Amino acid sequence: LQTKLPAVGTTIFTVMSALAAEKGAVNLGQGFPDFDCDPRLVNAVTDAMQHGLNQYPPMTGVPTLRAAVAAKIEAMYGRTYDPATEITITAGATQAIITIILAVVRPGDEVIVLEPCYDSYVPNIELAGGTVVRVPLTPGTFRPDFDKIAGALTPRTRAILVNSPHNPSATVWTREDMLKLQELLAPTETLVISDEVYEHMVFDAKDHQSVARFPGLAARSFIVSSFGKTYHVTGWKVGYVAAPESLTTEFRKVHQFNVFTVNTPVQHGLAAYMADPQPYLQLPAFYQRKRDLFREGLKRTKFKLLPSEGSYFQCVDISAVSDLPEADFCKWLTSEVGVAAIPLSAFYESGFDQRVVRFCFAKKDETLNTALDRLARL
Amino acid sequence: LQTKLPAVGTTIFTVMSALAAEKGAVNLGQGFPDFDCDPRLVNAVTDAMQHGLNQYPPMTGVPTLRAAVAAKIEAMYGRTYDPATEITITAGATQAIITIILAVVRPGDEVIVLEPCYDSYVPNIELAGGTVVRVPLTPGTFRPDFDKIAGALTPRTRAILVNSPHNPSATVWTREDMLKLQELLAPTETLVISDEVYEHMVFDAKDHQSVARFPGLAARSFIVSSFGKTYHVTGWKVGYVAAPESLTTEFRKVHQFNVFTVNTPVQHGLAAYMADPQPYLQLPAFYQRKRDLFREGLKRTKFKLLPSEGSYFQCVDISAVSDLPEADFCKWLTSEVGVAAIPLSAFYESGFDQRVVRFCFAKKDETLNTALDRLARL
Ligand SMILES: CSCCC(=O)C(=O)O
Ligand SMILES: CSCCC(=O)C(=O)O
Repeated sequence: LQTKLPAVGTTIFTVMSALAAEKGAVNLGQGFPDFDCDPRLVNAVTDAMQHGLNQYPPMTGVPTLRAAVAAKIEAMYGRTYDPATEITITAGATQAIITIILAVVRPGDEVIVLEPCYDSYVPNIELAGGTVVRVPLTPGTFRPDFDKIAGALTPRTRAILVNSPHNPSATVWTREDMLKLQELLAPTETLVISDEVYEHMVFDAKDHQSVARFPGLAARSFIVSSFGKTYHVTGWKVGYVAAPESLTTEFRKVHQFNVFTVNTPVQHGLAAYMADPQPYLQLPAFYQRKRDLFREGLKRTKFKLLPSEGSYFQCVDISAVSDLPEADFCKWLTSEVGVAAIPLSAFYESGFDQRVVRFCFAKKDETLNTALDRLARL
Repeated sequence: LQTKLPAVGTTIFTVMSALAAEKGAVNLGQGFPDFDCDPRLVNAVTDAMQHGLNQYPPMTGVPTLRAAVAAKIEAMYGRTYDPATEITITAGATQAIITIILAVVRPGDEVIVLEPCYDSYVPNIELAGGTVVRVPLTPGTFRPDFDKIAGALTPRTRAILVNSPHNPSATVWTREDMLKLQELLAPTETLVISDEVYEHMVFDAKDHQSVARFPGLAARSFIVSSFGKTYHVTGWKVGYVAAPESLTTEFRKVHQFNVFTVNTPVQHGLAAYMADPQPYLQLPAFYQRKRDLFREGLKRTKFKLLPSEGSYFQCVDISAVSDLPEADFCKWLTSEVGVAAIPLSAFYESGFDQRVVRFCFAKKDETLNTALDRLARL
């Protein structure tokens, strides 16, 4: 059967989670918490179901949830989005991103991705008939290289995908980075697809530099975020897109024919829960403590620690521990040591091997400690 | 902003539901129940949430739900699907269909749709770069015209979309229809995308003729269905795709990069609830009673009744009531008479006007009676 994605296999997250389950390994691979969400959030969704809110919501999302999102963005980043025409609720960030790409990328359009990047971006662009233009982040530091980005921009560059806090490297773009991007794009018509799913996980008292803060970027940007990541419910599959009206209009044309709309009671539950901003305001401190616990523990191992400025990931250099390629190392670590990790090579087309693997520290302290004990034995 | 679907507006269902809400009309337009689901189903989902089943499920769906789907298909249609490799849970039937199309339709491939057809099919094919080949159902009766279908088949026909029970016409394909389709496709490599979301709403003691019953069709078919329609939870956005392993493999390559996966607690709740087949076994009788109540009432009006063999829709000819084009008539009926309906022209490219509109009878008896009183005054 000839198909559209002949070369694509099963996403690395599924492969490593299946292997972790099979081997009974501690799963620090796929990014999801092993602790539960706030019971108030479960109660809010239950309430909505019990009140009969179980039929189609508006295609664009439940109005109170769109309003809560707009209020949050305004409070955090100082930009106003109209909930009626500029915010759309999605079936997770992944669905948001493919829908944006299907809406704006025409056959032959070029789309810049900064490698390493999340594994759905490239197949999404290919499905839309676009041409993927890969620009490497600086090897070792994973910082954006604006000379390289400038060199990749052409009149056919339809969009650039940016992602800060960055998965997998856990680096965070600075205000200066964003200003440089804004300057670079000013003379172009290039759109920005800004994957900000880890927006509430920026550490060390830094601020998340949403593109919403930069008018020259915001006017050309789709901002994508995830309730699942922020509220410890990755399995609920809800996210949103914020974008100026002209962009949102085009987005919704495709969204309505992709998922049409998103789980009603979950949307009502989230809307009620978001009346209190504390859960997302406390998230940086919550995850910073876990990051610090995990990093402290990793000092007992032979791994070389890379910075973790944001997200719930911690990357390590494996050179002093093993000669195996990253991907084989992760399989070995899962099977033989009982700790699952994700090889960074999975985020590169060519499987480029930097001797770096990614751990997820969105886990109970006891889970992290069990993993650390096993890693310390290496 | 130049985009991929320049001509697309907002889906008719959103437009008419918004107008119905604005005018306080009884909404017999968009297809969804105005009564609630079984409280046991709500409790099952609540249980799952309270047991902490709130993180990513497997990409393909919760195993117990896939097993329940396979068991149901086997019991109803006598074909075995392997839940591991041939069943995938989707974010509703709409997401299932676009994902199938993105997975198998290559630029330039032809895809046959039978008009009138659901309004997402054509934009889905266009997004995939395919060529839409429109074959009309027989005007007046809406039955498949196999000579016309045969005439439309070419070596480039990648797929044909079939939909029985049919939205909007409420016709149901017979066993003979399916055998003819099987015969017609036998010498070809054309795939079948079988939208069977109303499979449990076939009336008058007839059986639903799933493509699963016909080995020559099943081997080339993606079967799409919807838990939302079957269990009165259209807002939960869950469906499934059943297809032979070779087709499922290609489907999942795209699915994982579209929504990745589907709400975990909803899947667990449905799996528990499906242990009892009674809810879907009783559905034909449940909706047949509503259909009969609604048809009986419509006899008091000047509308001419078309057959309703399946689905939760009833079409009527408006010729004796109004000279307005269908679309204008539906707006007028919503605004001035207080009953929303959907014009069949919305299911045709050219807006072809057969003087027919569609009502949804998935409503409380009192809702149907209120609507009937208003319609009788015409
Ligand atoms: C969609 S499963 C992957 C979760 C995730 O974002 C990651 O582990 O990077
Ligand atoms: C996705 S909203 C439309 C519901 C439906 O299937 C219909 O009314 O035809």
